[in-house]
Parts: sequence; structure tokens; C-alpha cells
Amino acid sequence: MSEPIFILKGNIVYSRNEKELAIYEHGYLVCRNGKVDGIYQTLPFRLGGNPIRDYGDCLIIPGLVDLHIHAPQYSYRGLGMDMELLEWLEVNTFPEEAKFESVDYAKKAYGIFVENLRRSATTRACIFGTVHRPATLLLMDMLEKTGLDTYVGKVNMDRNCPEYICEETQESADETLEWIKDVNHRKYQNTHPILTPRFTPSCTDELMEELKKLQMRYDLPVQSHLSENPGEIAWVKELCPWSEFYGDVYDRFGLFGADCRTVMAHCVYSDDSEIARMKENGVFIAHCPESNMNVSSGIAPVRKFLEEGLHVGIGSDVAGGSTENLFRAMAHAVQSSKLRWRLQDDSLEGLTAEEVFYMATKGGGEFFGKVGSFEPGYEFDAVVLDDSRLKHPQPLDIRSRLERMIYLADDREIRAKYVKGQEIDLN
Amino acid sequence: MSEPIFILKGNIVYSRNEKELAIYEHGYLVCRNGKVDGIYQTLPFRLGGNPIRDYGDCLIIPGLVDLHIHAPQYSYRGLGMDMELLEWLEVNTFPEEAKFESVDYAKKAYGIFVENLRRSATTRACIFGTVHRPATLLLMDMLEKTGLDTYVGKVNMDRNCPEYICEETQESADETLEWIKDVNHRKYQNTHPILTPRFTPSCTDELMEELKKLQMRYDLPVQSHLSENPGEIAWVKELCPWSEFYGDVYDRFGLFGADCRTVMAHCVYSDDSEIARMKENGVFIAHCPESNMNVSSGIAPVRKFLEEGLHVGIGSDVAGGSTENLFRAMAHAVQSSKLRWRLQDDSLEGLTAEEVFYMATKGGGEFFGKVGSFEPGYEFDAVVLDDSRLKHPQPLDIRSRLERMIYLADDREIRAKYVKGQEIDLN
Repeated sequence: MSEPIFILKGNIVYSRNEKELAIYEHGYLVCRNGKVDGIYQTLPFRLGGNPIRDYGDCLIIPGLVDLHIHAPQYSYRGLGMDMELLEWLEVNTFPEEAKFESVDYAKKAYGIFVENLRRSATTRACIFGTVHRPATLLLMDMLEKTGLDTYVGKVNMDRNCPEYICEETQESADETLEWIKDVNHRKYQNTHPILTPRFTPSCTDELMEELKKLQMRYDLPVQSHLSENPGEIAWVKELCPWSEFYGDVYDRFGLFGADCRTVMAHCVYSDDSEIARMKENGVFIAHCPESNMNVSSGIAPVRKFLEEGLHVGIGSDVAGGSTENLFRAMAHAVQSSKLRWRLQDDSLEGLTAEEVFYMATKGGGEFFGKVGSFEPGYEFDAVVLDDSRLKHPQPLDIRSRLERMIYLADDREIRAKYVKGQEIDLN
Repeated sequence: MSEPIFILKGNIVYSRNEKELAIYEHGYLVCRNGKVDGIYQTLPFRLGGNPIRDYGDCLIIPGLVDLHIHAPQYSYRGLGMDMELLEWLEVNTFPEEAKFESVDYAKKAYGIFVENLRRSATTRACIFGTVHRPATLLLMDMLEKTGLDTYVGKVNMDRNCPEYICEETQESADETLEWIKDVNHRKYQNTHPILTPRFTPSCTDELMEELKKLQMRYDLPVQSHLSENPGEIAWVKELCPWSEFYGDVYDRFGLFGADCRTVMAHCVYSDDSEIARMKENGVFIAHCPESNMNVSSGIAPVRKFLEEGLHVGIGSDVAGGSTENLFRAMAHAVQSSKLRWRLQDDSLEGLTAEEVFYMATKGGGEFFGKVGSFEPGYEFDAVVLDDSRLKHPQPLDIRSRLERMIYLADDREIRAKYVKGQEIDLN
């Protein structure tokens, strides 16, 4: 256990809002009972007796939040990058995910994933498992041990997928119920269940209805995919001709925000109606820029989401994305937004470093509650970055050092990590 | 000195051509007098007595070739990524490059650059310095010591730049001559001069004529920038109304291939006439995908260049690009080509892993002669990659392991590096 009060010293940076950083050079960040108590340039006399961990000239930022990542796909990160979404699912994803029927394979594969996530700058994540209940529980057991705070979902899919990985509708619902009971029985501190219908093309209406029952019974949040690829969207329209737009399908089944917290990955092609509904329902968007490049999806209109005041966070979307490193995802978000401005719509300017940092911290953090900021009362998730490996001849201010991290940081820069005031073992 | 004959053992991969990899699992790569002698699955009896360096299950690939990088900009890599080209030059580039008037500053800054380039997978590079002769010579001295084989240019610019960094026309020509003499006097083994007019907007016609005289007198190659940004291109048209297209300006002065080896960075907006001229003149294109994203330039039609049979290599273009890591540049090339297909022109398919690997090895290597391949007679540039840090639960074939490297490798994967048969110190 941590002390009830302890203090980190360093160059503290967090997002006041999407436009503005709060920066405290050589400041004191106070943790009290797992929450941020305050930041001080000079430590108040009354706090004098508490332990101080002095990180010298390091940067201290809120922990990063990955709103969308597939644990079983970690094994083929950086592979098979020559297909669009639907073909890619069939050729790469389903055969690999099928292997997780074996708990032995899952142990090996998830061991690698969990170890690397633990060592990354990520403190919170929304994670897809597979359809398999035992493997998903194993994944949750492993994540729980790391101290990271995560939502994990057993995937549901009962149509339009190969037989070897397709569930029967009732089986899918029953297994999900059993999985929820198993999870509740385990009384995790940091690992929470989230309903995870893969996406509309692989879930029948009946299954959606069953999931809604479970959602209400256990008050669960929901994660899924939305408007990622033109072929996918046309398919959804075919499968659900009654829908106004793709997101409307989830909404008809009560799995699209409003009374249940929901995060939807991608939203590359969300039109005004879909955007309006997401806003109305408070749906979170997981922007996954690398994945959207790698499977040739396109570029989401993130600036528009921000201007409309939607909840937007960042997702690594491994293995559509190649890495769990969210700094890389932030850089990709800036980069692809500039190409969108240049090639598609010059009314939406490229994203700034401030904006993507906001999305990777407070923007996504809100899905977890008061997370992703160092304002008082927020949960104490912090990452200490030692950027001394990345030498430079000139002096750099803190804001510049943060921008460099977005482009250049990897796990070598991470000197310490805290989740809810608990230090995470990085070894 | 190396032995006249030595042998590397490992999983050998190189590009036969832009479509096809040559792969030798646990093969023997023989170096004789700094050149590739051959590859064998079983070592011939006659070679039995020669030293073998067994790299176990590592990958062995040709050294990577960076066709475009700015040494003085390395200090602000990953910074100031919120402007288009011309503003970015004015705000970030010129003030930083001006500092290299001080040899002390250059020593510090170039020391960092050279050390990191040495430790990267790059074995060959075309490098921009600054306008300053002493600093550029210092850079060349430092590079020579690494054993890397590079072209380095003292930059020329005599118009349209701040006074503090602008040369007089005659001064620019004279300094360039003195610099060439200095370089020749030093008798470098691995470090070669290359004429480096910054780009048309910053070089008068008179300066171009002077540079052509030097080019002929010393038979020097040329590097510059071409058709990167719409604003830049419009400006060139204004400055040189007589030109048929941007590249035609360089060509009128005899600095565009044909009788002098030339590499042009970017070519994002090269039209059919410019492409035809580059083909006719044998101009090399340095494709710099990250830079083209970061300064919002656009995406070059690389597939078209390849189909037309042009010489295309890869450039990191630090600090338009954020990193000297050419694996990252290869990934960016694949990624941005897919966005181009999706958003701009679906007649040009995205690039494959094979194609970008070809560009980063043999495609760019041809600028240096017989470089970038393990075919017999090629110069022996090799990089040994230990990918064991990047764990995976399933078996992977060699081609897959190479694709992963493109997305995931950094300097941690580089176990050894050879240039012309000499091992490079990576410590």
C-alpha cells in the first residue's frame, strides 16, 4: 500500500482543456488517498512531513488512456498490413482470435500483451478480448495484477464470421452472463467488465436485445466499432435497412450512450446525423488514427468532433494499429489530421499537440470518471518521463519537451507510473 | 581493418526487385574485400577456413539508405509541428541553422546527430548541412569517423531568406569552392561533397550558374528540394516565369540529373512533365512521407514513380520528419500511400512492405553505386536485427518478421552494422 499522502516533484504538465496546457516547472504534485490533492510551486508548510519522490528534471504527465485496443491481436501487430478492414478481419483476425479457445495459448499471448501494456505510458484502457470466456477471464486476472485500471470485454459475434469462431445467439448471451458472474465473483479492484458486441455485421438483432438485458441488469458500459470503412457501412445498411445511420443500429438496441456509458471506435465516416446522436447520447469516440491508415479506412473528422463538444479520446487499436505506444498514436492523430486538411476538407484545420495530448489524457479519461487530469479530486494517474535519452543542444521549454515526447517517446522514457496513487512495477 | 573474407550467418533478406524479397533462412553471407561475394545455404568447402560471425536467429538486411536528411535540424526534431513549409522554414529552420555559424554550437549539435545516425540502421545518407563552411567541414569530419558512407552538402542560399543567414551570390560560390578544396584536401574515405542549392526560392539564377561551373569542374552530384508544397511551387513559377515546371528550373542550369547525379526531395506535386523529365534525366526521388505529413504538404504519387521506373528512395527528412529511424519512414510511406489511395486517387494502390523495403535499400542505394542489395559485387552494407525484444506467441516466417520490423524496430533491434565490409561501432 501507498502512503495516504505522498508528493511527486518534477515538471508537471496536464491539459486544462483541449487548447491549453497547465505547466508547473519543478512543482510538487500531491497525492492524498489515491487522488490528486493539489499542485504547488512551493510546498506548503503543512505538507512538509510527507514523503517526496524527487524526479529531478523529468516531466510528470497524467497517465495515458487507450480507449480501444484488442488484446488478442497484439500477437500480429505490424503484420498483414496490406488489406482493407473486412478482408483483414477474415485473413488475419479471426484465425488468430480462434486460437484463444486454448487457455494455454492465451496465457502465452496475453502474457506478452499485458507485460508490454504495463510498461507503456498507458494507465487506463478499454480492451477487447475474444469470444472465449476462459481466455477473457485469464486476461482480466493478468491485468488485475498489473495495477492498471481497465475495462475488458468478452467479444460477442453470432453471424457473418467463420464457423470456428462464431457463437450461437443464445450461447453468446449465456456465456456473457456466466462471464459477468465470474467477474463479479472475482471482486477485481481495477478490472471491469464491458459489453463488447464486435460490430453490427457480426451481431444479430436478437443478440443485441440479449446484450441490452444484461446491460440493464448489471449496469454495464459498452464498447464497439462504428463507421470505420465504406464497405462496412454499406453492409450495415443492408443488414439493418430500417436504420437511419450506422450508429442508429446500436441506439435502437439501447447500446449507444444515453443510459449506458459507451465508447465507439473510429467514426471515420460519421455524418451529421450520427455526430448529432453521439453528442445527444454522450457517446465517447475512440479515434484510432494509425489503424485508420493501416487498413486504408480514411481519416476521422476529429476537429469537428472537438468543435461539437463530443467526447473524444485516442485508441491504439492494436492490431489495426501496430503499437500500444500512445505517444505514437498522438503523433499519428496530428499527422493524419493534416493530410485530411490538405486532401479532403480544408475547412477543418489539423490538430495541435495540445489537442491530441488532451484527447489521450482527459478526453479519454472521462470515460473512467475523474481521470486524465491533475486537477484536485482527480484520480492520481501519473507517468514520469525522463527525456534525457533524446539529447538536444539548445534549451527547451516544458511545452516543447512535451511536444517532442509525442513524436519520439517510447517505453525507454518512462521512469515511473502511478495508477490511483499506486506505483506500477515497470520491470 | 576487416579480414579480406568473413562470413555472417543468420536469416538473410534483401530485395530482388521492388516486388520480391530474396530470403535465406540461416544462410551464410560472404564478404570479400568489402563486397558481397555470395549467399549460401550451406557453406562451400572452399570457404571453410574463414571467420564466421553467427548471429543465430537474427535478421540480416542491407544497410538502409537515407536519401534526404538535414543534420542541423536534428536539434528540433519533433518540434514546431504546426506550420506549413514556408512558415516553418522561417520560424523554426532559419533561426536554428543560423546558430551553426558557431563551430562550438555545431560541435555540440552535430555530435548528437552523428552519434544517433551511427547507432541507427542507416549506412548511407545524403545530408544537408548549413551555409557555413567550417561547421559543414566539422560535420564531415565527425561523419568520417563513424564509418558511415555519406554525401554532405554545404547549403547555398542567396535570396529570400533572413539577412542573418543569407549569402551574397559571389560569396556563396566562393565559399563553396573553398569548401570543396577543403574536402578534397582532407581525403575522406567515406564522406563525399554534394552540391546543395537549398531550393529555387532561395537561389538566384546567377548562383545556379556558378554552382553548375563547380559541378562540372569537380564532377559533383547535386541534392535539392522539388515540388513539395503548393505555395512553394507557385512562388517558383513567379520567380522563374520562363520555366515549364519547377524541376525545369534546375534542369536549365544543368543541375537536374542527365550529366550530374541528382537527388530531389519530395516531388509531392510533380506533374507528368516533371515526372517525364526526371525519368529522362535519371533523377533520384527522395520520398519523405513523414515530413510531407508533418508540414502538411500532401502525399507523393510514389506508386506512379515506381510504375514509371523512376529511381525512388526514402528520406527521413529530419526535421520535417521527426526521426532518423528509417523503419519509421518505411511505415509512414505505406500508411500515407493508403490514405492517398483512399482520399485522392484510387487508381494508385497503396505501397507494400516489399516496395518500401526496396526503396529504403536498393532504390536509394543506387545513388551510391552498387549499394542496397546482397547480390554478388554489391558493396557490403549490412544491418543485423535482433527482433527478440518484440515477443510473439506464434511462429513467424522471415517475411513477416521483416514486415514487423518496419512498424516496430528502433535502434534497440540493431545488433551489428557493416559498411563496405567494416563493422561500425554501435556503442
